[in-house]
Amino acid sequence: MCIERVFLGGRLVDNLNIFWHNGKVEYKDRCKHLKQKGMVLWFTGLSGSGKSTIAVQVEKELYKKGFVTYLLDGDNVRYGLNSNLGFSNEDREENIRRIAEVSALFKDAGLITLVSFISPFRKSREFAKQKIGSITFVEIYVKADVETCAKRDPKGLYKKVKKGVIKNFTGISSPYEEPENPDILLDTRELSVEEAANKVIKFVLNKQR
Amino acid sequence: MCIERVFLGGRLVDNLNIFWHNGKVEYKDRCKHLKQKGMVLWFTGLSGSGKSTIAVQVEKELYKKGFVTYLLDGDNVRYGLNSNLGFSNEDREENIRRIAEVSALFKDAGLITLVSFISPFRKSREFAKQKIGSITFVEIYVKADVETCAKRDPKGLYKKVKKGVIKNFTGISSPYEEPENPDILLDTRELSVEEAANKVIKFVLNKQR
Repeated sequence: MCIERVFLGGRLVDNLNIFWHNGKVEYKDRCKHLKQKGMVLWFTGLSGSGKSTIAVQVEKELYKKGFVTYLLDGDNVRYGLNSNLGFSNEDREENIRRIAEVSALFKDAGLITLVSFISPFRKSREFAKQKIGSITFVEIYVKADVETCAKRDPKGLYKKVKKGVIKNFTGISSPYEEPENPDILLDTRELSVEEAANKVIKFVLNKQR
Repeated sequence: MCIERVFLGGRLVDNLNIFWHNGKVEYKDRCKHLKQKGMVLWFTGLSGSGKSTIAVQVEKELYKKGFVTYLLDGDNVRYGLNSNLGFSNEDREENIRRIAEVSALFKDAGLITLVSFISPFRKSREFAKQKIGSITFVEIYVKADVETCAKRDPKGLYKKVKKGVIKNFTGISSPYEEPENPDILLDTRELSVEEAANKVIKFVLNKQR
């Protein structure tokens, strides 16, 4: 643990001169402390495109490199914070609004925050970018056409859509608005998980300089 | 940054054997990485009792000691994640439910998470405790009677209540259910901010052993 001690006015003090003006520990203090910049890696793409698989791989590699990270995904958000939301367009927007707000908090805490949700609407992703700050928001489009995703169907959801069990399914009965200018494009019909993850890690390391 | 390298099956590898079974970086990995245990310091008490002042002081001291912390309070939650909630009993419950869920995520990230809200209802605090886990949830009752708080009135809210501008105000027109068995009791009519903060820090250091 790493508090520098410096001479200030002839006294040896903790080098925490930054935050005393408003009394709170602030973003820049946390980054200094963690020796990294807080940022949000926002993975977007169809169900089955490979978002979560890649995000998990990226987190593992960043962890191995010593970074402090956190992954927000369906497992820890849909059944917790957003358990009172359904799949109407209104609820989908509120779902992403809350995720954007929470990831902004995690970024503010200095963490490299990975966010893995379909997030189909441009408007919601734009809101996230505004909220998080365009410099620290990284839009990662995990691209695969709906036929490829339906073939992979890791959660068996496309089958359920075919049977009519699921309605409002992104890419089929509900729109997916492709990112127009993502920071990173990962075409998973061409890239392996490792290749895709490496592309992201390279981008992150560059941003962390 | 602190990844151990160990010999495993004759090869020198990163000592990250813990999380590979499900592929994700997990709570215990993060704690190992940060060299601390994630926990939630849940400050509850009337408006003007001193919750936030003490929480800010505790965070500063923990930060100086090298811990990784984050403070959730009105400043970063009420105007963000919970900006679509009002002050009806139902909205107050949803407010605390979301805060409980988010603080559980921050704890899961390995951070010492400070939560400073009135959180007037026992039921909501009980939910938070369940959600976060009773071992890592620390209920801190910041106690001061309503007359004392109204005299301090740091935000001028009690004056507004008197004038009838604010309705549904905890301790006056809306109930505050005192914790029956808090982990830490801070009576701010007797303790200074520093004394109160020290009591919390002592508790935390003991839990971190």
